[in-house]
Amino acid sequence: MTLLTGLDYASVLVFALTGALAASRSQLDVVGFIFIACLTAVGGGTLRDAILNREVFWVADPVVLAVATLAAVLVFFTAHRLESRYRALLWFDAFALAVAVPAGVAVALAEGKGWPVVLVMGMITGCMGGLMRDVVCNEVPLVLKQGELYVTCAFAGALGAVGAGHAGLETGVALLICAALVFTLRAGSIAFGWRLPVYKSQPPSSGAPKR
Amino acid sequence: MTLLTGLDYASVLVFALTGALAASRSQLDVVGFIFIACLTAVGGGTLRDAILNREVFWVADPVVLAVATLAAVLVFFTAHRLESRYRALLWFDAFALAVAVPAGVAVALAEGKGWPVVLVMGMITGCMGGLMRDVVCNEVPLVLKQGELYVTCAFAGALGAVGAGHAGLETGVALLICAALVFTLRAGSIAFGWRLPVYKSQPPSSGAPKR
Amino acid sequence: MTLLTGLDYASVLVFALTGALAASRSQLDVVGFIFIACLTAVGGGTLRDAILNREVFWVADPVVLAVATLAAVLVFFTAHRLESRYRALLWFDAFALAVAVPAGVAVALAEGKGWPVVLVMGMITGCMGGLMRDVVCNEVPLVLKQGELYVTCAFAGALGAVGAGHAGLETGVALLICAALVFTLRAGSIAFGWRLPVYKSQPPSSGAPKR
Repeated sequence: MTLLTGLDYASVLVFALTGALAASRSQLDVVGFIFIACLTAVGGGTLRDAILNREVFWVADPVVLAVATLAAVLVFFTAHRLESRYRALLWFDAFALAVAVPAGVAVALAEGKGWPVVLVMGMITGCMGGLMRDVVCNEVPLVLKQGELYVTCAFAGALGAVGAGHAGLETGVALLICAALVFTLRAGSIAFGWRLPVYKSQPPSSGAPKR
Repeated sequence: MTLLTGLDYASVLVFALTGALAASRSQLDVVGFIFIACLTAVGGGTLRDAILNREVFWVADPVVLAVATLAAVLVFFTAHRLESRYRALLWFDAFALAVAVPAGVAVALAEGKGWPVVLVMGMITGCMGGLMRDVVCNEVPLVLKQGELYVTCAFAGALGAVGAGHAGLETGVALLICAALVFTLRAGSIAFGWRLPVYKSQPPSSGAPKR
Repeated sequence: MTLLTGLDYASVLVFALTGALAASRSQLDVVGFIFIACLTAVGGGTLRDAILNREVFWVADPVVLAVATLAAVLVFFTAHRLESRYRALLWFDAFALAVAVPAGVAVALAEGKGWPVVLVMGMITGCMGGLMRDVVCNEVPLVLKQGELYVTCAFAGALGAVGAGHAGLETGVALLICAALVFTLRAGSIAFGWRLPVYKSQPPSSGAPKR
């Protein structure tokens, strides 16, 4: 239970930092920072808990909201010191992803779900908070950036945890492998441009323009 | 129960195809295809189950996730053969709508809800997965396209099912009527331009610009 | 219980008006008006109830859907008489916010939650319906408008209710204080430009462009 709680706290903290950085790019006031930080920090886990019919984690333990609030206030007063807020957002988001995916995996395992649900819960907890942040702040969603690994990292990490579990490793070790896989792949994609081949379309078709 | 399951499977399959087509328009990699396909395929039903406090259908039966994944992989390797991916998306979406609305209606009936909730569940199950797809992929939401019937088709179909039920017809027949109504109206709108009168605004007012 | 129901009805009515006004700015047909009106009217409360594991309020009492539908039809036939639909949307939204925040606070209090959850439920019920409306209709979300108080009003109102409760005032009085605080702050922001200092960024950095 302590491991679960620790992972939830860590992912809340780092996702809140990314939410606050996105708020700084939208030039909000301090309450706006807190709002976006909390949305990003608890969005994925809330969805996970609602789908699994668990008590939502921040209703059970509102201290996580205080953590997200503090992170937002900190960023409000210090973000101008960053050379590139977008680059900081990218890297914090990579850390948060690497913590949130195992957090989702751990909860689904603790609920005794089968491996497909474990996989999906890892991806939901990892990707959905950031997706809500990007949709609300009108940023290009990181899950949609062409030629970058993002959902793939979450998927590979969750798959690694499931595989390690099947191989008989302890849950703690499996979660560590998961986090390491997610972060390595995501960092490789940001720093070295690792990618999968993307869909090759023909020249623009006569379809409707995108908005 | 078999009817419910069959409808859920069919709507998952066809909505997954539309999600993958939207992913192809955003030029994602294969994991991105799977992500958007699953979001579209299970989004509406997940919302329906969460609101009705049922176990979410793909947690109870994760095979639907495999169906959506296969559909996404299929589209990834074959979409370039389509003459117009947007047109294919439109027509697959029409099929999916015609299957998902009765799927929502059937579940609400099985839960013993009154007709207003049955109506709304049909519309949520039919429209929300596609709406999530469009918001995440930054497409103009089909529910918002001016001069096209979309939500109206879902509404008319669900109303038809409720009416048929009140007239004493069997549930299976009522759902068939529902599907036929939805598809006929939607197809008529795509192919022949059927529409309702839209709101007539005055010349652009001095309001805030839309983003 | 009557107070809770009354607050829910009032917030549904006024949020439905704002949803229908947003639909008129997107030039939808009458079913589109109803769809956006219902989404806006029940979005925040649905999220509140799903997170608190209560029965969703409009499933328990579908009459609220009829209220939202009537509001949508009314706006469809009368919106052209408004001099500025955007201005009307802003002011109706301010009223709705001032009713929905106490509605969220009241429910969380009735569920016996601690003050942090009460605070957040007030903000979710107040802000999320309008946020869904703005995301779906592609408007600049009011929660993101620079140099305006919005989330701040919801926060201050919910905080006022919690404070009044701790000071020993009756729930009804605390909710009245909450509504008055929200409306005063929001109205002051619209009419007189009240605001908090926003985040001061340096000149545009080399980060990714927003979409």
